[in-house]
Amino acid sequence: MNTRPDMDFLSRSKSLSYPNFSFDITHKDPSSRARLGRMETPHGGFDTPNFIFCGTKASIKGLHPHQVKEAGADFILANTYHLMIQPGADIVEKMGGLHKFMNWQGPILTDSGGFQIYSMGEGVNADEIKCRNNKTTRKQSLTKITEEGAAFRSYKDGSPLFLSPESAMEIQRKLGADFVVQLDECTAMHVSEQYTEDSMHMSHRWGDRSLKAFEEKDNGAQAIYGVVQGGVFQNLREESSAYTASRPFFGTALGGTFGGNFDQFFEIVSWCMPHIEQNRPVHLLGIGTFRDVFECVRLGIDTFDCVSPTRIARHGWALMKGAPSERLNLLNSKYKNDQDPLCPELGIAASSQYSKGYIHHLFKAKESLGGQILAQHNIAVMSCLLKDIRSSIQEGTLDALQKEWIPD
Amino acid sequence: MNTRPDMDFLSRSKSLSYPNFSFDITHKDPSSRARLGRMETPHGGFDTPNFIFCGTKASIKGLHPHQVKEAGADFILANTYHLMIQPGADIVEKMGGLHKFMNWQGPILTDSGGFQIYSMGEGVNADEIKCRNNKTTRKQSLTKITEEGAAFRSYKDGSPLFLSPESAMEIQRKLGADFVVQLDECTAMHVSEQYTEDSMHMSHRWGDRSLKAFEEKDNGAQAIYGVVQGGVFQNLREESSAYTASRPFFGTALGGTFGGNFDQFFEIVSWCMPHIEQNRPVHLLGIGTFRDVFECVRLGIDTFDCVSPTRIARHGWALMKGAPSERLNLLNSKYKNDQDPLCPELGIAASSQYSKGYIHHLFKAKESLGGQILAQHNIAVMSCLLKDIRSSIQEGTLDALQKEWIPD
Repeated sequence: MNTRPDMDFLSRSKSLSYPNFSFDITHKDPSSRARLGRMETPHGGFDTPNFIFCGTKASIKGLHPHQVKEAGADFILANTYHLMIQPGADIVEKMGGLHKFMNWQGPILTDSGGFQIYSMGEGVNADEIKCRNNKTTRKQSLTKITEEGAAFRSYKDGSPLFLSPESAMEIQRKLGADFVVQLDECTAMHVSEQYTEDSMHMSHRWGDRSLKAFEEKDNGAQAIYGVVQGGVFQNLREESSAYTASRPFFGTALGGTFGGNFDQFFEIVSWCMPHIEQNRPVHLLGIGTFRDVFECVRLGIDTFDCVSPTRIARHGWALMKGAPSERLNLLNSKYKNDQDPLCPELGIAASSQYSKGYIHHLFKAKESLGGQILAQHNIAVMSCLLKDIRSSIQEGTLDALQKEWIPD
Repeated sequence: MNTRPDMDFLSRSKSLSYPNFSFDITHKDPSSRARLGRMETPHGGFDTPNFIFCGTKASIKGLHPHQVKEAGADFILANTYHLMIQPGADIVEKMGGLHKFMNWQGPILTDSGGFQIYSMGEGVNADEIKCRNNKTTRKQSLTKITEEGAAFRSYKDGSPLFLSPESAMEIQRKLGADFVVQLDECTAMHVSEQYTEDSMHMSHRWGDRSLKAFEEKDNGAQAIYGVVQGGVFQNLREESSAYTASRPFFGTALGGTFGGNFDQFFEIVSWCMPHIEQNRPVHLLGIGTFRDVFECVRLGIDTFDCVSPTRIARHGWALMKGAPSERLNLLNSKYKNDQDPLCPELGIAASSQYSKGYIHHLFKAKESLGGQILAQHNIAVMSCLLKDIRSSIQEGTLDALQKEWIPD
């Protein structure tokens, strides 16, 4: 299998200069890899570390974009896989691109679609990739992955679809996010080292094809992230990190499985960090508990994304600084008479103008306002956490802050 | 059966003076019974004719109270039946009453619970009562109505519940709305004249018991509406209207069935109007198309309520001035590329900052934001309609306005 870099392409692609984007590291923590940065995009700037909230289908579950902004969010993510199926990239392009389509004026990142094709097509639970369990059961694959790309079927109408590195770039160009991601294959924890290595090399070739396709239509409106794969194997993670550093990506995203427990997760991230390009922004794909964020900020991660803050909101969970397991279950009947709001300090109506008793009632009565209140609250909590983390890195008080947020 | 008024009670109840409420008729249309009025309550005032939006379970489907206000709503309704089951009147009272519980600072009306007990218990489709079809099929009754009150079962856990005129007042006092409604039995179209008459007389006795119970705990915070029943029978409607006029209710609500078609509906309302007390506000229970509102404003109705604006929103319908059938179906694929917003003139983000194409996408993608956008839009449309109607009554241009809103 050819793993040799395309040297012609590499020399030519020096022209990828991202004139409308910048990432500047403004402060480094002397006792860890933690760092503060400033990202500028055609849709405004933001400070890092930061959190990207998931607007999967061009909507942040149940929230207006101005409510997302009001909660402190700077940056959102939408999913290529979902949007290519509904409404389709051509329609989003005709409607003026994602920013105009969904009425979000800040930065947007679209993922490559690879994770969803893999997790939905292979029937591998996303939990496995994200190290939340050890199940090895598999449903039959609905996806066929070849050197050319991934063939799969629409969950909407069963029609055959195909995603290649080139079409992933074309679709993401039509969607018009600020940041796009190379197509990769997202390997799970329980595949062999050989499969992981072969897949990683294919992802590297897909990375080169993605870059080439990106560059051909580059008009300065977008910047592209490369993805580190390599599963749970140190040598592969290092090789994949070095691959991304050798290519003119704007940023680096860490993807794939991070093992079966927290320790392995943090170890895998730490293998990658010395080998990626240090001056590029580093995104950790699909990770986002308080603990994950603290630990990975220390390892040098600049941005996170996770569906969890909005997903758990729909099930009655409110993220809460200092709470056991980082959250409260508002469905618990102990809240039915509770007149206290969730957290007035967050400064938004969702967290200050409704009692826990009322939110409990809304869930019991199956009123959707309950999930909306908690979704906005949870975004505000995560935004507050990242803001606190940025201040504490500046002040050298990250350890003390972690004890406030996660006392046990 | 005793239909004689309780004269002792009547003479005593002159003390019901509603010192914190007022209703003043400020202008009368010379060519119809249409009128302008001003209502004052402990939670602020509003002009009539006006529309009461339904917050059935202490939540306006998917909207924050400030969004409801922003859309132009002055006045909301919550359902005694639903709230006595979830969360229970005691909890709402402990939480400071409905205004504080749900964070709505404007006027609130709670219905008596009678309509829901009847329509859910008897299995008579609400459409029948509201003259939208002629079905005569019945499920077995789950409700037993006696002179004492209505016995029924909780839809939440099957537990036995009982609503008497006295307990309906007690529950509504605990809920703490500005306006409460006497308990009545809501008869359907296809019951006999004898049943309708007997039921109406019982509702009148329940009205007296409701007034007595209301007065015993009256502290000036609430005002009570009597209900006109009598089904599709002119003599009964006139008798019931006269009954409400003879009792010290603050307002008059027209309830029960309004027949099988629009003409019968308007005829039944017109039978009542000369016989009710002219200086009290008149509410029409559960009615609310554009056409209903125009016709019934001419007959002298001051306030309307209907779940329709928020209910149809959840199914993709946008109310629209001048549209065929008064609304657009955003699920229609002709909207998928439509870049126009619903109606920028309404001055709210929901109607001005999202394209019809995006709203179409949200419904196709099963994103709840679509229903929220349309719910707020539909409230804004109804609020705009009632505001336009008030101006046109003042200016004597109601007919011309109706042609603008309902061209065909």
